[in-house]
Amino acid sequence: MTKHHRSPLSRCTPYRFFKPAIFLGAANAGADETTSIFQSMTDMDIMWVLIAAALVFIMQAGFALLEGGSTRAKNTVNVLMKNYTDMCFGAIIFWMFGFGIMFGKNLSGWLGTDHFFLSNGSGAEYAVLIFQIMFASTAATIVSGAVAERMRYGPYIASSIVITMFIYSVFGSWVWGGYYGGEGWLASLGFIDFAGSTVVHSIGGWCALAAIVVLGPRTGKFGPDGKPRSIPGHNLTLVAMGGFILWLGWFGFNCGSTFAATERIGGIFLNTHLAGSAGVVGAWSIMALSRKPVLMTTTVNGGLGGLVSITAGCASMDPVFALISGLVGGILTHVGVQCLTKYRLDDVVGAVAVHGVCGAWGTLAAGLFKVGDMFNPSIIAVQFIGIGAAFVWGAGGSFVCYKIIDKISGLRVSTLHEQRGLDYTEHFEIGYPEFQDVLHH
Amino acid sequence: MTKHHRSPLSRCTPYRFFKPAIFLGAANAGADETTSIFQSMTDMDIMWVLIAAALVFIMQAGFALLEGGSTRAKNTVNVLMKNYTDMCFGAIIFWMFGFGIMFGKNLSGWLGTDHFFLSNGSGAEYAVLIFQIMFASTAATIVSGAVAERMRYGPYIASSIVITMFIYSVFGSWVWGGYYGGEGWLASLGFIDFAGSTVVHSIGGWCALAAIVVLGPRTGKFGPDGKPRSIPGHNLTLVAMGGFILWLGWFGFNCGSTFAATERIGGIFLNTHLAGSAGVVGAWSIMALSRKPVLMTTTVNGGLGGLVSITAGCASMDPVFALISGLVGGILTHVGVQCLTKYRLDDVVGAVAVHGVCGAWGTLAAGLFKVGDMFNPSIIAVQFIGIGAAFVWGAGGSFVCYKIIDKISGLRVSTLHEQRGLDYTEHFEIGYPEFQDVLHH
Amino acid sequence: MTKHHRSPLSRCTPYRFFKPAIFLGAANAGADETTSIFQSMTDMDIMWVLIAAALVFIMQAGFALLEGGSTRAKNTVNVLMKNYTDMCFGAIIFWMFGFGIMFGKNLSGWLGTDHFFLSNGSGAEYAVLIFQIMFASTAATIVSGAVAERMRYGPYIASSIVITMFIYSVFGSWVWGGYYGGEGWLASLGFIDFAGSTVVHSIGGWCALAAIVVLGPRTGKFGPDGKPRSIPGHNLTLVAMGGFILWLGWFGFNCGSTFAATERIGGIFLNTHLAGSAGVVGAWSIMALSRKPVLMTTTVNGGLGGLVSITAGCASMDPVFALISGLVGGILTHVGVQCLTKYRLDDVVGAVAVHGVCGAWGTLAAGLFKVGDMFNPSIIAVQFIGIGAAFVWGAGGSFVCYKIIDKISGLRVSTLHEQRGLDYTEHFEIGYPEFQDVLHH
Repeated sequence: MTKHHRSPLSRCTPYRFFKPAIFLGAANAGADETTSIFQSMTDMDIMWVLIAAALVFIMQAGFALLEGGSTRAKNTVNVLMKNYTDMCFGAIIFWMFGFGIMFGKNLSGWLGTDHFFLSNGSGAEYAVLIFQIMFASTAATIVSGAVAERMRYGPYIASSIVITMFIYSVFGSWVWGGYYGGEGWLASLGFIDFAGSTVVHSIGGWCALAAIVVLGPRTGKFGPDGKPRSIPGHNLTLVAMGGFILWLGWFGFNCGSTFAATERIGGIFLNTHLAGSAGVVGAWSIMALSRKPVLMTTTVNGGLGGLVSITAGCASMDPVFALISGLVGGILTHVGVQCLTKYRLDDVVGAVAVHGVCGAWGTLAAGLFKVGDMFNPSIIAVQFIGIGAAFVWGAGGSFVCYKIIDKISGLRVSTLHEQRGLDYTEHFEIGYPEFQDVLHH
Repeated sequence: MTKHHRSPLSRCTPYRFFKPAIFLGAANAGADETTSIFQSMTDMDIMWVLIAAALVFIMQAGFALLEGGSTRAKNTVNVLMKNYTDMCFGAIIFWMFGFGIMFGKNLSGWLGTDHFFLSNGSGAEYAVLIFQIMFASTAATIVSGAVAERMRYGPYIASSIVITMFIYSVFGSWVWGGYYGGEGWLASLGFIDFAGSTVVHSIGGWCALAAIVVLGPRTGKFGPDGKPRSIPGHNLTLVAMGGFILWLGWFGFNCGSTFAATERIGGIFLNTHLAGSAGVVGAWSIMALSRKPVLMTTTVNGGLGGLVSITAGCASMDPVFALISGLVGGILTHVGVQCLTKYRLDDVVGAVAVHGVCGAWGTLAAGLFKVGDMFNPSIIAVQFIGIGAAFVWGAGGSFVCYKIIDKISGLRVSTLHEQRGLDYTEHFEIGYPEFQDVLHH
Repeated sequence: MTKHHRSPLSRCTPYRFFKPAIFLGAANAGADETTSIFQSMTDMDIMWVLIAAALVFIMQAGFALLEGGSTRAKNTVNVLMKNYTDMCFGAIIFWMFGFGIMFGKNLSGWLGTDHFFLSNGSGAEYAVLIFQIMFASTAATIVSGAVAERMRYGPYIASSIVITMFIYSVFGSWVWGGYYGGEGWLASLGFIDFAGSTVVHSIGGWCALAAIVVLGPRTGKFGPDGKPRSIPGHNLTLVAMGGFILWLGWFGFNCGSTFAATERIGGIFLNTHLAGSAGVVGAWSIMALSRKPVLMTTTVNGGLGGLVSITAGCASMDPVFALISGLVGGILTHVGVQCLTKYRLDDVVGAVAVHGVCGAWGTLAAGLFKVGDMFNPSIIAVQFIGIGAAFVWGAGGSFVCYKIIDKISGLRVSTLHEQRGLDYTEHFEIGYPEFQDVLHH
């Protein structure tokens, strides 16, 4: 699609930068890698990565609003506090441990082993670190919406730290690892995931899936007959606003993953917007064709599904295939939510469908529609390996994590607290105090 | 005001880049144009255009909040859905047809004729395309606030597609057209509209005018005595937030229109902010002097009027004239709203005054206060031609469009539905379900 | 921490650029200064400063939401109008007078004396001017939250203009002054305040302190027994959203203060985020350890306190010390609010603690943890001089200002108006008209 002038940390061509280090031998690989990767970043590249990091940062606010609006007013503070504080704990933890695990010297292909507590770094290293901190926060916070209205705050923060530090970072090292030498095992197979359909979104989505399996549905979500009941969110303006902000952040998410301000960001930006738009059109059309109302949440989730679906392949697809990827993604969000509900899984915001399912689809689409090498079976096979590995590691690892935390301290609030609302029982305040008579009469 | 180092797509000096192509002859003009226009964009220019595009994108959220807050709670979802989905349909439509019509080879001066479904483009082309997609979305969505609380959703989307694809794009080709050869007829007269006071805002405003003429006022807006009644919006916090976000987006709107990260963006940014500020001060002062309360909507609209008023001339005015342009614009928003009300035209958010009237004023101001060539009658005459052409084409073309759609499927909801609220009747959900007892008692 | 490639307007190394001009003699110093400072800014630097300015701009919306959500619904419009309009008056006033006072030729070290009504400037000058306009707006608007729910709107705007034009600008000239020749007296001592812990935040915070001393507490804030009573804000979603937006803006605030897109912005960005995160963790931990609920406002203010605490030293600290600075800042916000309440000072949003106290701490921390020169007593002594000067000038100067305005027209609304709500009594409208029966029953 675009010419690749410079791509110092290019994620879809891992061979170019990482293989030579291995030939040089393990001993001095680290130092040489650092030289080749970070020193190729110009001041302009650093600026670009930081602008992108700021955009990814604001996605946290997007999640907070989208999830806050999708829950009942009595649980809004809980959702907001989760998004606000998991970001803060996550940032410090990722600086301490996550970055080293994910990007440190990775000679085994399974784990990074240095550059913890990064200090005395170059501007390029710090810029990439902060960009990756924002990514880690995004992955971790995907869970918060799915488990809303019934999970205890303390255990949520504990599990979020485990995901940021370990589950996300370890998987990430398989695909994007080895900044300081070595290479992840998935990368060495040629796995394509440019900006994280799998690494960020699927991992986040599968962690959310494990969490809602362990937690069980909200009281009242499924009637005595097993049929799902609608529990509308308290503020659709917040849902729309959250959707817009997430979309804005995605431009940084996808375009910043070049780690370089080259001309190819033009195509990535365009693909991102077309796929998001097509996701909305896809969700909109399937509802309209089946003569059902096109709800706000369906619309917003359709757009997010489209955006997730182009995240892996945004740098290696022509616009028309970006559009197709997004369109299918938008439809899949609706189908995914239906499927989960059928299995009595209660995902408050549809995070598993949007991030998990569309993340898998987007990863596949990146293989199917790779410009200049479309429908290549061996590429597609590798994509399936990555998709499967993400599911096993993400859902499996976090399932174990949630089970352990559940044993230790209990994940779920009592039914009484759930009815009273988590804002009051977990945080001792309410979101809209002047409206409480109305809310609780 | 500033030195013009590079201005590859400079809109106020169309001769420099487009005339030579015509001398070269029509046959090979296209290819050479492409070379001269897009190849002069550096990686830094591309980055700048994309950052600006992200800022223009978020204006869509600004419109949604401003309009959502200005309507009654029973119509909020409808407003949000219009803004969310017209953007998505518009993006795809503009990629398919609008870009080609507006910027394709334009040898007649009246219409572009190639580069539909742009594919296999350079990073520069994609960057400019996505920037223009965001512009088209802005123009189209201006209508949504004016027609709020009474227009059916389906016909709105249909009309929005017609505006994006045809009305906006055709007019745009007259002023900014000819990226791939040729030149618009208004550009060839020397018409000045740097960032779109006329092309985007007036066109959007005049479409809104046609729409509210065809639709008629909301039930209850005018009493049996013909006097207007105040129908306050349900959430002024959203109005303020929308105003801030639109203002933020304007920095991208105006500064990105350089298509180049040159030093002149400093003056454009300053002019934009001073004009917006002066718009608020203008609206504020006229209210305070006439001893009326300075309402939030008046304040926000004053700022937007100031911003619209500097959009045409932001790159060719000294700061003091930017301030004057904005001050007058702020006053005009108030005057404009009064005039419309006098003619029993019901514009829910004042879009016609803010975008239509101030767009015309801003275009005139760009001629009056052109640095180094102030009050030049021949420049002013051309500005009037452009202002008039925009009114005739925008209001006339969209009037025909709305009349046709009205014939086919009806534009307006029933009075019963209007009273019940469009959220429930058009979208089958409500924005604030936990507050419904309060809202509908 | 980082290598200083270029730092044309570097604030922590004032000697490099300003001293030579003094040796050249006063007569021609101005012209040469201009040459050396602004001409060293490349197009990329200008772009960077403008992107940062856009981020600082949006902080105004962050303040509006944070403060709006922290007040009762009957006072929301008042808070929003203050933030919206003080920005506009401030922008024009700062262009007219503030920039000249703060950055004009400053041979005395106490006041700038030229470059009022800047016109015919270069792109670099305009870019720096608009960045500084946004800074001035931030400093002035810090007051608005502290004095919420009881201060008249007109006198607020008048005092805001005095702060922007005089109190802020004069102090600023002592530290950052002399773009066009000369140097501020605090700068000549070697005072370190990279992005404004003292110049912007402490000055704003101490003005807020003076204002709440003059105004007195809200009716009902302190019971007959003198014990404080909680007056919860009406919308915690707005508080969280405001916190996120302010945080986003801080990246521009700190990273833009380089005035150059060099690699050092990577470390500044990282430090900013780590300090903010540590601020949240600090506030969170002190509440959790003292077995009190971790409230939303405490959390958001902890983050802001952390961000204020790194503002002075963000460019001269290693990440681990940024983290420590932020952690302490987060704790100080809580302690500061407790102290003020003990003295019956009613600061609605905790602005004095967040901006005043943490600003002072951040300025001290910049001296304590200066990379390569930690715990140097002479540096620390100078920092204390600057901290003290800011308190005396900010609190003292604004105290006089508020007293004078109070004499002339009265600062405080009547108790009746306070009970009715300032939205209705000062602005003749209410924020949520459809919910008024609920709010005022």
